[in-house]
Amino acid sequence: DFLHGLQHDIKPAFGSSKEELDVFLCQGILTWGEPVSRVLTDSALVISQIKNSDQTSLITMLLEGPPGAGKTALAAKIAKGSDLPFMKLCTPENMIGYTEAAKCQVIKKIFDDAYKSPLSCIVMDDIERLLDYVPVGPRFSNLVLQAMLVLLKKNPPQGHKLLIIGTTSRKDVLRDFEMLPLFKTVAHVSAISTCDQLLTVLDSSEVFTDKELQEVHRKLDGRWLFIGIKTLLALIDMAKQMESGLRADKLMNLLEDLNAIGYNQVP
Amino acid sequence: DFLHGLQHDIKPAFGSSKEELDVFLCQGILTWGEPVSRVLTDSALVISQIKNSDQTSLITMLLEGPPGAGKTALAAKIAKGSDLPFMKLCTPENMIGYTEAAKCQVIKKIFDDAYKSPLSCIVMDDIERLLDYVPVGPRFSNLVLQAMLVLLKKNPPQGHKLLIIGTTSRKDVLRDFEMLPLFKTVAHVSAISTCDQLLTVLDSSEVFTDKELQEVHRKLDGRWLFIGIKTLLALIDMAKQMESGLRADKLMNLLEDLNAIGYNQVP
Amino acid sequence: DFLHGLQHDIKPAFGSSKEELDVFLCQGILTWGEPVSRVLTDSALVISQIKNSDQTSLITMLLEGPPGAGKTALAAKIAKGSDLPFMKLCTPENMIGYTEAAKCQVIKKIFDDAYKSPLSCIVMDDIERLLDYVPVGPRFSNLVLQAMLVLLKKNPPQGHKLLIIGTTSRKDVLRDFEMLPLFKTVAHVSAISTCDQLLTVLDSSEVFTDKELQEVHRKLDGRWLFIGIKTLLALIDMAKQMESGLRADKLMNLLEDLNAIGYNQVP
Amino acid sequence: DFLHGLQHDIKPAFGSSKEELDVFLCQGILTWGEPVSRVLTDSALVISQIKNSDQTSLITMLLEGPPGAGKTALAAKIAKGSDLPFMKLCTPENMIGYTEAAKCQVIKKIFDDAYKSPLSCIVMDDIERLLDYVPVGPRFSNLVLQAMLVLLKKNPPQGHKLLIIGTTSRKDVLRDFEMLPLFKTVAHVSAISTCDQLLTVLDSSEVFTDKELQEVHRKLDGRWLFIGIKTLLALIDMAKQMESGLRADKLMNLLEDLNAIGYNQVP
Amino acid sequence: DFLHGLQHDIKPAFGSSKEELDVFLCQGILTWGEPVSRVLTDSALVISQIKNSDQTSLITMLLEGPPGAGKTALAAKIAKGSDLPFMKLCTPENMIGYTEAAKCQVIKKIFDDAYKSPLSCIVMDDIERLLDYVPVGPRFSNLVLQAMLVLLKKNPPQGHKLLIIGTTSRKDVLRDFEMLPLFKTVAHVSAISTCDQLLTVLDSSEVFTDKELQEVHRKLDGRWLFIGIKTLLALIDMAKQMESGLRADKLMNLLEDLNAIGYNQVP
Amino acid sequence: DFLHGLQHDIKPAFGSSKEELDVFLCQGILTWGEPVSRVLTDSALVISQIKNSDQTSLITMLLEGPPGAGKTALAAKIAKGSDLPFMKLCTPENMIGYTEAAKCQVIKKIFDDAYKSPLSCIVMDDIERLLDYVPVGPRFSNLVLQAMLVLLKKNPPQGHKLLIIGTTSRKDVLRDFEMLPLFKTVAHVSAISTCDQLLTVLDSSEVFTDKELQEVHRKLDGRWLFIGIKTLLALIDMAKQMESGLRADKLMNLLEDLNAIGYNQVP
Ligand SMILES: Nc1ncnc2c1ncn2[C@@H]1O[C@H](COP(=O)(O)OP(=O)(O)OP(=O)(O)O)[C@@H](O)[C@H]1O
Ligand SMILES: Nc1ncnc2c1ncn2[C@@H]1O[C@H](COP(=O)(O)OP(=O)(O)OP(=O)(O)O)[C@@H](O)[C@H]1O
Ligand SMILES: Nc1ncnc2c1ncn2[C@@H]1O[C@H](COP(=O)(O)OP(=O)(O)OP(=O)(O)O)[C@@H](O)[C@H]1O
Ligand SMILES: Nc1ncnc2c1ncn2[C@@H]1O[C@H](COP(=O)(O)OP(=O)(O)OP(=O)(O)O)[C@@H](O)[C@H]1O
Ligand SMILES: Nc1ncnc2c1ncn2[C@@H]1O[C@H](COP(=O)(O)OP(=O)(O)OP(=O)(O)O)[C@@H](O)[C@H]1O
Ligand SMILES: Nc1ncnc2c1ncn2[C@@H]1O[C@H](COP(=O)(O)OP(=O)(O)OP(=O)(O)O)[C@@H](O)[C@H]1O
Ligand SMILES: [Mg+2]
Ligand SMILES: [Mg+2]
Ligand SMILES: [Mg+2]
Ligand SMILES: [Mg+2]
Ligand SMILES: [Mg+2]
Ligand SMILES: [Mg+2]
Repeated sequence: DFLHGLQHDIKPAFGSSKEELDVFLCQGILTWGEPVSRVLTDSALVISQIKNSDQTSLITMLLEGPPGAGKTALAAKIAKGSDLPFMKLCTPENMIGYTEAAKCQVIKKIFDDAYKSPLSCIVMDDIERLLDYVPVGPRFSNLVLQAMLVLLKKNPPQGHKLLIIGTTSRKDVLRDFEMLPLFKTVAHVSAISTCDQLLTVLDSSEVFTDKELQEVHRKLDGRWLFIGIKTLLALIDMAKQMESGLRADKLMNLLEDLNAIGYNQVP
Repeated sequence: DFLHGLQHDIKPAFGSSKEELDVFLCQGILTWGEPVSRVLTDSALVISQIKNSDQTSLITMLLEGPPGAGKTALAAKIAKGSDLPFMKLCTPENMIGYTEAAKCQVIKKIFDDAYKSPLSCIVMDDIERLLDYVPVGPRFSNLVLQAMLVLLKKNPPQGHKLLIIGTTSRKDVLRDFEMLPLFKTVAHVSAISTCDQLLTVLDSSEVFTDKELQEVHRKLDGRWLFIGIKTLLALIDMAKQMESGLRADKLMNLLEDLNAIGYNQVP
Repeated sequence: DFLHGLQHDIKPAFGSSKEELDVFLCQGILTWGEPVSRVLTDSALVISQIKNSDQTSLITMLLEGPPGAGKTALAAKIAKGSDLPFMKLCTPENMIGYTEAAKCQVIKKIFDDAYKSPLSCIVMDDIERLLDYVPVGPRFSNLVLQAMLVLLKKNPPQGHKLLIIGTTSRKDVLRDFEMLPLFKTVAHVSAISTCDQLLTVLDSSEVFTDKELQEVHRKLDGRWLFIGIKTLLALIDMAKQMESGLRADKLMNLLEDLNAIGYNQVP
Repeated sequence: DFLHGLQHDIKPAFGSSKEELDVFLCQGILTWGEPVSRVLTDSALVISQIKNSDQTSLITMLLEGPPGAGKTALAAKIAKGSDLPFMKLCTPENMIGYTEAAKCQVIKKIFDDAYKSPLSCIVMDDIERLLDYVPVGPRFSNLVLQAMLVLLKKNPPQGHKLLIIGTTSRKDVLRDFEMLPLFKTVAHVSAISTCDQLLTVLDSSEVFTDKELQEVHRKLDGRWLFIGIKTLLALIDMAKQMESGLRADKLMNLLEDLNAIGYNQVP
Repeated sequence: DFLHGLQHDIKPAFGSSKEELDVFLCQGILTWGEPVSRVLTDSALVISQIKNSDQTSLITMLLEGPPGAGKTALAAKIAKGSDLPFMKLCTPENMIGYTEAAKCQVIKKIFDDAYKSPLSCIVMDDIERLLDYVPVGPRFSNLVLQAMLVLLKKNPPQGHKLLIIGTTSRKDVLRDFEMLPLFKTVAHVSAISTCDQLLTVLDSSEVFTDKELQEVHRKLDGRWLFIGIKTLLALIDMAKQMESGLRADKLMNLLEDLNAIGYNQVP
Repeated sequence: DFLHGLQHDIKPAFGSSKEELDVFLCQGILTWGEPVSRVLTDSALVISQIKNSDQTSLITMLLEGPPGAGKTALAAKIAKGSDLPFMKLCTPENMIGYTEAAKCQVIKKIFDDAYKSPLSCIVMDDIERLLDYVPVGPRFSNLVLQAMLVLLKKNPPQGHKLLIIGTTSRKDVLRDFEMLPLFKTVAHVSAISTCDQLLTVLDSSEVFTDKELQEVHRKLDGRWLFIGIKTLLALIDMAKQMESGLRADKLMNLLEDLNAIGYNQVP
């Protein structure tokens, strides 16, 4: 295991990871509608509680929503905004190819470091990925799961406080794992689903002409829409490769290819 | 395995762990109703038996109830109240990321230490977690399970006596594992389920105005309630972040978000 | 594996384990009814056969019955009563946390030691536990199972004789494992199921007044009863913590809590 | 693996194991009826073929029948009777607690040794046990199975001949494993199923009086019988512990306990 | 693991693998119809985006289609055509017999190398094979899958851009694995399915006489056709072994043997 | 693994294995009917293609048919007949008791050696056994399977050509494993199924008198027949142990015992 550690370059997890969080925020947070502001309000209450309360030493919050809805960016935003003295990111991106045991050690180290600071925040990104979850089977790492189930409940040492912000696109799986009730606050991160919300994003991208925006408006009439902000930003960038004037059309095609718009019922 | 031991820092389990138990009692035990006093009475009989009997050298008691109902705190309370000379806590919090084999060794060590004292008490907290149980599958550690099935039946050496207090929120799972009959006394730790019980807790929290308490009383009329004391204390602390006057409303909203109150039938 | 041996303290299994058997007999054997005497008679025939026959070098006997019915105590009693020169106890209590392979080695060592004596007896207590059996799955150690299936059939070396006494509360599981037919004699260890049997035990405990005994008698009228002697002795000891006069009542309550008495059909 | 070898004492498998076979023959072979003589005739043909043919270098024969029917004893008898220059016993009794890999090595060694002799015979006793087979699951060692599937088909080196005699009580399992067609001759070893066959055995045991034999005859009238010779010899030895005169009665009781006799249909 | 590395000769993955890609292109790309040109057009857009955009740093494209349709050759073609400075091939051909962990390390190394170049392209060929997928079970390497799920989402470091081109013939399996949505562009690589398309290929092969081509045309009338370009080229080569004149006949026979042509419905 | 290599004596796989192939041909190939000649014609085309084509560098052919139909012998015959400069046999007989990883290494070595020769042939005998396949479960070695799936598709290096001849009696299993389409030519090796075919074999064996041949002819009238040549040769050799005159009768009995002949439908 010692050799294993060397080989996998488990970096000392001590030290705050504020810059790491910036990576997820480089495209910024666009307040495209009420669902975004609601998440931000909810999280403000949680931040105030962890700072003020002397009753509660552990607060857990889950951001859940469809793939690409902006969960990771929002979690980073909230964590950074909280401005707590110690901040740590627990992400599958740092554990690629790790064994279950190595993953557990990394996670445990992050918590042990956090416990040393009087006021800390841990972002656990993409929980289903940390758990090596795949619906075929299903298969997952029970070792990591059990560690999490304990860590999400364990109080930090006397006089220390900890805020845990988790993200997931598989709320249902977390429920099956009996992990959901361990998050005392659950905030839903929505996909974009109205024409107005879409136009807010398109408008602020400065990629489309006014005429194109009107065209989009007209074409969406009477159709449903369901797309995460992350995917939408990617499609806009694709459309941008076309000449100005053709972009609205391209965007509509891309949305259709992804089944992100349709008549009748959202599938 | 030697290396493994080093790495995981298996502390010598010898020595009583009374302070460890205090951690679970820092919020105190509030006698919010008859179910609480009943558990305390039942346990008094058990304590008296382990002290007085010269027939019985092993007594096992299980505290079972829904998540957050106060099982761990009550187990700690009973253990401390018993004032037996040797007291040991067996909790998943001390075994995060351990392999099945390492868990077994820790548990065995705790029992071996207890057997050395003439009169001991072991608290086995969160048995389903000690077993690495997850309902998906289900999966669990059979190595730890088998060790427990033997330890819960094995008499301490001649002239020694042992009280084991277990806690679980999955009584049904323990029955499937044929572990339930090994607990000779089973006490139910209830959730709070009447308006009176709730008001007792709210009142003693000194967070709400009298008007707010009356408001809660009125709003609960004709509705069921089902919430563990631990969760309730957390919600009260959240509500406390609001200005006085708005807190009762906030509390009701939080209860509703958690499906802790409702009309018709408890789900 | 060498290190493993050290760590798990595999004691040299040589040497007779008569004192170990005494542990299971410290509460004595109470002949509370015909089922007890029948087991003792049956076993006498087996003992006589192993001593006298020069045809048969391997005799296998199984004591099966519900949990707490007294299987282990009876097996110890029969083994000790046989007064064979070499006696060995094979119990899961000595293998807590062992790997499948380590268990196999211990069991094999016990048999190898027994084969060295001209006339030996091995008590295999709690076979389902030796097999790490759990009905969820089910899971069990096939390595140990296969070792047992061979050992229960293998003749000791020329001129040596061996008696194997097994105990189990899962006769059905042993049948599924095709182990049951390897026991040439199967004796049923019964639970206590009549009022007379119960009163015999209560009476000899010297815990209850005559009036209390009559009360029990009256209260049991028209109800079924089903309880193992081990559990019953534990309940009597609990009742004893009450003041004289209240004990019969307490006992009845405890029996009811355990579903050990009831109207209509035994469940 | 080297250490493993040491620890498990894998004896050099070279050298013929004729004495080992004698162990299984110490009670002799009693020709209690036609089924016994038929197996012996069939095997004579096989022996003659392996000795005479220069076309066929590998002959495989399976003895299959219910538990205790005498398969192992007959295989030993046939092997010894063949008087081939090299004879080897492959039995689970020599592999207790071995890992799958160790079992494979032992089996492979036995075949490699046999290939060195111009004319060899290997007895593979209790194939389902060699395969660690258990119907629960089912579970078995695929490593051993695959080794066997190859070895039962692989021709010995040029100019060498090999006879393999297997035994099993789970012909159906061997069929599922696609092993059955690899045995070119399959002989059925029967249980005793007629009164005449039974009386032949009882008579030759010299345990019963003539009157007792007549009593058995009368009592069996109109009932079916189904018992292996091994089990029957054990019952006779048990009955022998009774006084003369009571033995027929005892035997009938024992047969009934085992469900070896009955009215109507064989179950 | 160090030894393992040595033994498996994990070559340093650094350095571009342009020549490796040539291997898959030695038979060239024949534009046999519209489906081929469409894939090439779609990919041109993707290439332009990765080169021009400063919003998007990670672009993922999947080529999916039936076995032998030309996915690998097209991926190689597109990658080479892109002329990005760093190009890397991730193919199961370089990982034969690797353990899951070794595969993960190789894949991770390829990405780490790519992250070092400002503009890179990785071809992940035969994703279902990289995952050790087999529909029986199904079985697959979850370790590799989880690594891929993260790598397909993880942004390269600030100021670096990466294009990932995957190929698969099991789009459905990738959907089950929740991997499909991670590919922002999905292009279908078609089988040849019209007579015209077939004749284009046959013609350009210069194997058949004009008369033979007409014969093929006539024989295909009213029948469906479904065959990958790779398989078709192999059949043409087989037919070429026949004398000129007989080749069309042979080709038709081979197509029929493979069920590549038929009446009624494509199966 | 190094130790493992030593222990299992993995011979350097370099060097052609022409003599090894002879072993499977010692009984010769009897052309008992059209099915035999068809396989030989089909394979001639394949041999000519691998020698002449400069388009195709990898040719794969599968011989499939019931157990004992002569697949291995025909594969050896074809390989030897091809007279390619490098010839290698990949057979489970050389991998008895190997771990999955060791099997993979051996197979990979065989291919690596073949790639070194400009024109090679590999016989992969008994593919289901190489895969450790058993229908119970089913279980198989996915490591070996994945290696094969890649190797059956991977082109040899520029300027090298390779012919792979596989054999199997479980074509259906290979289809489930998605391995079947990787064999571009599939030839069926038939069982003997007409009286004429049988008589051809019997006649050439010179074991039966003319009268006996006529007897067989008469007895087969109106019955189906289904038997592999390998099994038939074994039965003839058995019958040969009888006196001349009785042999036809014996043969018919043996065929009946094996269910190789019957009225009505082939089962
Ligand atoms: N209102 C917003 N909320 C969240 N993200 C936003 C918003 N506006 C813009 N973004 C940008 O959208 C992207 C959201 O991507 P992000 O990775 O957070 O999504 P995700 O839900 O975590 O996706 P996944 O399900 O793949 O994990 C980020 O680049 C972020 O900067
Ligand atoms: N009557 C009471 N019984 C138990 N706990 C009480 C009571 N009154 C107040 N508390 C407080 O409530 C909390 C109960 O939390 P505890 O961890 O014991 O619950 P739990 O049932 O063990 O939860 P979990 O199911 O998550 O293990 C403790 O902080 C305890 O101090
Ligand atoms: N007639 C009796 N038969 C057996 N045990 C008796 C009898 N009378 C008193 N006892 C006492 O009852 C207890 C029986 O416990 P024992 O452990 O043998 O039960 P068990 O059936 O083995 O339980 P388990 O199913 O838990 O293994 C012992 O303490 C024994 O001394
Ligand atoms: N005709 C007979 N055939 C076989 N065994 C006989 C016969 N007559 C007497 N015996 C004796 O019966 C016993 C048969 O036992 P054996 O172990 O061979 O049975 P088995 O079928 O192999 O049992 P198992 O199914 O448990 O392996 C031996 O002791 C043998 O000496
Ligand atoms: N238009 C075309 N598209 C793709 N390949 C072509 C085309 N024209 C000719 N080819 C040739 O056809 C072959 C296609 O084989 P390739 O290995 O790419 O197929 P594949 O779909 O990856 O097969 P598999 O499903 O087995 O992985 C190559 O040799 C390629 O040179
Ligand atoms: N026409 C024939 N085709 C094949 N084998 C023949 C033929 N004529 C005679 N033989 C002989 O028949 C035997 C066929 O056995 P072989 O091992 O090849 O069968 P198989 O199909 O591979 O069996 P299995 O399914 O067990 O692997 C060989 O001994 C071979 O010499
Ligand atoms: Mg995310
Ligand atoms: Mg608790
Ligand atoms: Mg017992
Ligand atoms: Mg036997
Ligand atoms: Mg490909
Ligand atoms: Mg073959």
